Amino acid sequence: MTEPLPIDRQEDERDDEYALDPDLVAAIMESVDAGDRVGVLSQIGDLHVADLADLTEQIDPEHRRRFIELVWADVDQEFLVEVEEGVRDEIVSYLAPEMLAEAVRDLETDDAVYLLEDLEESTQREVLAALEPADRAAVAKSLSYPEGTAGRLMQSDFVKAPPFWTVGQMIDFLRASDDLPEEFYDVIIVDPAAKPVGKVALGTLLGARRPVTLESLMADDFRTLHVEEPEEDVAYAFNQYHIVSAPVVDDSGRAVGVITIDDAMEVLEDAAEEDIKRLGGVGDEEISDRVWEISKRRFPWLAVNLVTAILASLVIALYEDAISELVALAVLMPIVASMGGNAGTQTLTVAVRALATRDLTSTNAMRVVARETLVGLANGIAFAVVMGIVAWIWFADPVLGAVIAVAMVVNLLVAGMAGILIPIGLDKLGADPALASGAFVTTVTDVVGFLAFLGLAAAVLL
Amino acid sequence: MTEPLPIDRQEDERDDEYALDPDLVAAIMESVDAGDRVGVLSQIGDLHVADLADLTEQIDPEHRRRFIELVWADVDQEFLVEVEEGVRDEIVSYLAPEMLAEAVRDLETDDAVYLLEDLEESTQREVLAALEPADRAAVAKSLSYPEGTAGRLMQSDFVKAPPFWTVGQMIDFLRASDDLPEEFYDVIIVDPAAKPVGKVALGTLLGARRPVTLESLMADDFRTLHVEEPEEDVAYAFNQYHIVSAPVVDDSGRAVGVITIDDAMEVLEDAAEEDIKRLGGVGDEEISDRVWEISKRRFPWLAVNLVTAILASLVIALYEDAISELVALAVLMPIVASMGGNAGTQTLTVAVRALATRDLTSTNAMRVVARETLVGLANGIAFAVVMGIVAWIWFADPVLGAVIAVAMVVNLLVAGMAGILIPIGLDKLGADPALASGAFVTTVTDVVGFLAFLGLAAAVLL
Repeated sequence: MTEPLPIDRQEDERDDEYALDPDLVAAIMESVDAGDRVGVLSQIGDLHVADLADLTEQIDPEHRRRFIELVWADVDQEFLVEVEEGVRDEIVSYLAPEMLAEAVRDLETDDAVYLLEDLEESTQREVLAALEPADRAAVAKSLSYPEGTAGRLMQSDFVKAPPFWTVGQMIDFLRASDDLPEEFYDVIIVDPAAKPVGKVALGTLLGARRPVTLESLMADDFRTLHVEEPEEDVAYAFNQYHIVSAPVVDDSGRAVGVITIDDAMEVLEDAAEEDIKRLGGVGDEEISDRVWEISKRRFPWLAVNLVTAILASLVIALYEDAISELVALAVLMPIVASMGGNAGTQTLTVAVRALATRDLTSTNAMRVVARETLVGLANGIAFAVVMGIVAWIWFADPVLGAVIAVAMVVNLLVAGMAGILIPIGLDKLGADPALASGAFVTTVTDVVGFLAFLGLAAAVLL
Repeated sequence: MTEPLPIDRQEDERDDEYALDPDLVAAIMESVDAGDRVGVLSQIGDLHVADLADLTEQIDPEHRRRFIELVWADVDQEFLVEVEEGVRDEIVSYLAPEMLAEAVRDLETDDAVYLLEDLEESTQREVLAALEPADRAAVAKSLSYPEGTAGRLMQSDFVKAPPFWTVGQMIDFLRASDDLPEEFYDVIIVDPAAKPVGKVALGTLLGARRPVTLESLMADDFRTLHVEEPEEDVAYAFNQYHIVSAPVVDDSGRAVGVITIDDAMEVLEDAAEEDIKRLGGVGDEEISDRVWEISKRRFPWLAVNLVTAILASLVIALYEDAISELVALAVLMPIVASMGGNAGTQTLTVAVRALATRDLTSTNAMRVVARETLVGLANGIAFAVVMGIVAWIWFADPVLGAVIAVAMVVNLLVAGMAGILIPIGLDKLGADPALASGAFVTTVTDVVGFLAFLGLAAAVLL
């Protein structure tokens, strides 16, 4: 520990404590340009593999390739596991399979599976062939489960023991083992058929005397995960029940691996990330993707939006005569649609998240629908008053003010109902509400907004 | 383990394995109606505290109160920690302070802090007074750090040892302790001034022989957190570096507590949740909040949207003459604005997340800005062609088609730039990009969309 820095300096430092220093990155790129291998290695000296991964993501593709070629043999190749998919694919494309195999050989089985699952089949086979037979079997077994399941996420190397063992026996066994897993937090207690019956936390084990049996130390709360359980459900369980590690069982109920909380944490983060991106109308793109990939990925979402926008325009076209008679309608109509769109988005955002976190269930669904409708009504009335007065003053026309006020109430009421019913409906149909709700809800609010405002105006004003 | 269920039945079960069974919830509410305390208790029998918390969230407020009154004395009151804030406040409001104090007495200090920090000061004082002196001091100390920092998140009870201790001494010490923390994963190694110098994972400790010193077993990768470090940074560090537990130090560098990964996981989930809600234009509301609270919370976001919508309308008003001459302009103009809004939202969603996950830094900012501009241009051209043809055919006017095509390119180009520059700018100014980017970006795309389309149309067509 060095002397504490003055407070304001400290705050500055703390601000981007975990961000890579841009000056360091610039210096590394200079050394890469100069082909200075020793310089680059000394600059990345004590970077954590996760930071090394961030570094490779942040430099541009040309520097990246030269950087990897310079340092590959000398760095902890585990960093490849931490690199995001697009960049990893790129790096893998210029690594010879035997170089990749060497990197994979040093990984725990869950990390090996994570790296291998995205590779082309031929590369995958070559890398698998280069592994130790025991590791190869474990990795191949994991890969035999569907992508995105507990079977892919688990570490096949774990510590197990029968319930009748004593603490002393257990400790002696652990001391005698020369290949304990890198990280483990529980001993899994298994019956003679290898079915998990409980677990003993290492802290509990350490606090107990040698003659005590493991059975008497087993945690009250014990859960197993099935190999084919979706990883999002696994992550939910870890977060909900504060699990640190849990055994994974196959169809026969035998323990075949263990999932630890750090893997669950990543899945949880990825799932939230996916929801955010889907709600924002983007797919699984990364900040390092290229122009062409990104344009292609965003195109379908924009295409859907174009169709809904044209639908809304067809509604406007119905009232061309009204608009040409009273052009103020054209000026005001986007306001009604926009407010409905925003109110609908608010409701659907809350609904999508509540569905994802299992807070919105059939128990409270009707209550929530009623509430969202009332919220729509309440804010509809509030903004009807505001906008009614604005329109009245702006166009010196009290009837026009009244028309926009009524349209506002109608659209915000409908927005509230659509914002909750559409995600619930999509969820019931087995579709991802984060993916499609937005397009449906804004279509409804655009169409209803234009229809209510222009229809009413045509009836009352002309 | 019971007999395995037939496969399709199993899948069904797995589908909502972690959701509360609505039939159970309904049955419990019936028992509550009947005032059948024994019945309710047997129904909630083996529910995990987290599920008990979900149950209290899901039932309606009237049943909730009667439910709590019936079962409070007989359940594990730790469930209160798991209940979301709004519902917790409600429950706390009808618990006598001494009942609350009793619940808090059984909690670990970090959970106690979490419960207490939201209470009114007078209740907080009463509850604190009822705690054991040692716990009271620890909880009060934690509460003295700002909300949302490592100091509030930490558990003040942790296992520490000097570096020269042997594994044997450590194990003997742990066996002799009668109040080990409920969960711990590392021993924190401290120097004589109580400054942490390393940590030994329990798995490593268990695998080593008695005469080995702790110093020789310390993990390579060791990080400390400062008491005033924001909890989002703490969560980021845990996720980035796969940390399971880390000591928290005060200004003097002394270890004052430990944060474990399960707490970090919750913070990470909450931070992503907050980003989602802010991007969706809602505050920190929960699915169980009441109509009035929700309406009030959503009002400001809608008010901001109203202002931006009116701004856009002012642009339209500039071209009233053009619209009354050619009403097709009114029909088509929302399409240009809507496409720009969507493209801008796509870009800003990616930008906001990349800023949150520190993937967008000054190293790659210029590259990302250039790329987003190009993506805007590429999709702008694609949709210009499509929409140009649609407008040409619809209104049998090739020049109108050309006008909307040019406006589309301009608006999608601007959307790409605004979508990336606005979040980066807000971040540089220290504002939360998730909070305000949306309003700014859609203002830009609305204004530019209407201006480009109507302005060009007025110049070319009339």
